[in-house]
Amino acid sequence: MKIDVLPVIEKIKKEIKEHREKLNRKPKLISITDDYTGATKAYLKSQKRIAKEYDVDFEIIETENLIETIKKYNEDKNVDGIFVARPTKTIKFIEVAKILNPAKDVEGVTPYNMGMNFYGVEEFVPCTAESAVKILEQTEELKSKKVAVIGRSITVGKPLAIMLENYGRDCTVNILNSKTKNMQEITKNSDIVIVAIGKANYVNMDFLKEGTTVIDVGINVVDGKLTGDVSKEVEKYCSVTPVPGGVGSVTSAILMRNVFRAAIKGGKI
Amino acid sequence: MKIDVLPVIEKIKKEIKEHREKLNRKPKLISITDDYTGATKAYLKSQKRIAKEYDVDFEIIETENLIETIKKYNEDKNVDGIFVARPTKTIKFIEVAKILNPAKDVEGVTPYNMGMNFYGVEEFVPCTAESAVKILEQTEELKSKKVAVIGRSITVGKPLAIMLENYGRDCTVNILNSKTKNMQEITKNSDIVIVAIGKANYVNMDFLKEGTTVIDVGINVVDGKLTGDVSKEVEKYCSVTPVPGGVGSVTSAILMRNVFRAAIKGGKI
Repeated sequence: MKIDVLPVIEKIKKEIKEHREKLNRKPKLISITDDYTGATKAYLKSQKRIAKEYDVDFEIIETENLIETIKKYNEDKNVDGIFVARPTKTIKFIEVAKILNPAKDVEGVTPYNMGMNFYGVEEFVPCTAESAVKILEQTEELKSKKVAVIGRSITVGKPLAIMLENYGRDCTVNILNSKTKNMQEITKNSDIVIVAIGKANYVNMDFLKEGTTVIDVGINVVDGKLTGDVSKEVEKYCSVTPVPGGVGSVTSAILMRNVFRAAIKGGKI
Repeated sequence: MKIDVLPVIEKIKKEIKEHREKLNRKPKLISITDDYTGATKAYLKSQKRIAKEYDVDFEIIETENLIETIKKYNEDKNVDGIFVARPTKTIKFIEVAKILNPAKDVEGVTPYNMGMNFYGVEEFVPCTAESAVKILEQTEELKSKKVAVIGRSITVGKPLAIMLENYGRDCTVNILNSKTKNMQEITKNSDIVIVAIGKANYVNMDFLKEGTTVIDVGINVVDGKLTGDVSKEVEKYCSVTPVPGGVGSVTSAILMRNVFRAAIKGGKI
């Protein structure tokens, strides 16, 4: 069964609507890149389309000096949210994350915002991680559920695990990685499996028991088609988010909502 | 078998020695409290003794205005490290963590430093979490080990899980909490069990298979005696850190090392 994420997006849009009414102007998002080519170019073009859909002012800034450019926009009162495209080419991303203004960090990648997640504050957490969590919250009661997260990335697997452990959600979360032994045994013994590894069709029914809730975070291109980390056969036996039209769509909505949040907060953290 | 933590402390002392030689002065730690009574008083007195042992200048600051006091010492060039005693009485601890200068955050509780942990940077991570990790690194090869962390606290369970997931350690970490079902089944199936719940003698051999490495983070007082979260019988069948003289001793060494680190860095993050 495919999980329908539309109700999740509707809820986010409701929050956006409330912010918009208060704000009484278009918020502005800029996306900064030091490598406006290939996948980044395609990604930012789709971001432009999404910003239009959500009625967010949007501008792509190309630069060879990421740090100075970010510092400038950190202080620019006309810019509400700053997105920095990854991978960065001229400098390690962590150097970007360290200097980005947390109040404009709509993607939730600054150490400050990532650290707030430990404290249970999810104002700006990594959008994809939040997307998976929001979908799960809509899908089922999470308390005491056994969750396997495949993938330990900085912006998905790890923060996601912390969010699901936070009070109120109360999941028991097992974080699996490429060095994990007997992975299938663990995932088969889980109520929820989240897959965020970037390997097309990697997870099939060898990993799952029937009735598992599966969140597919993967976005891979196979023969020109977007393909998730979860094999198509799985939806016959499990509830699974589609790719495209699943986690990614919710992630986009969250990013745009965060631009409104940042605008409403007006630079305060 | 008891795990001997002395080699871990010796290694930390070696780093301290190197910093001391470079520094050529005593570093200064202040501990700020808005409730200098009971357990906090006892704790800060023991901190004073430890600071003396490590040749660190130490002062206890009592205040009714935590925020203003912290802001003052954030900027004071004569103070290298700031510790804020928990629980705080006049304000929620998170408000303290948010304004504390990360460069002086020797306990690793600011959102900034906690967030850096996701990026694999462990300059100032929560001392108790680092203590457990450093003991484990000395005890065995961690790669691919199945770890169960019992307890999901902000400064122990959660950051510890992230640290053990970080590249190079490559553990598979399951974070258990009070809502976890079949906890004993999970812990019995783990190579390493870390207990950080604050319940005296809670974990016994019903939770463990023979030969498990057990890290006891608990410090409870029972009949006037310090007692861990792990029952004494466990050391007959497993490798376990003693209480007292285990995780706590290493934690103290790490806190003092962090004061030297902060002094060396001179307020820069």
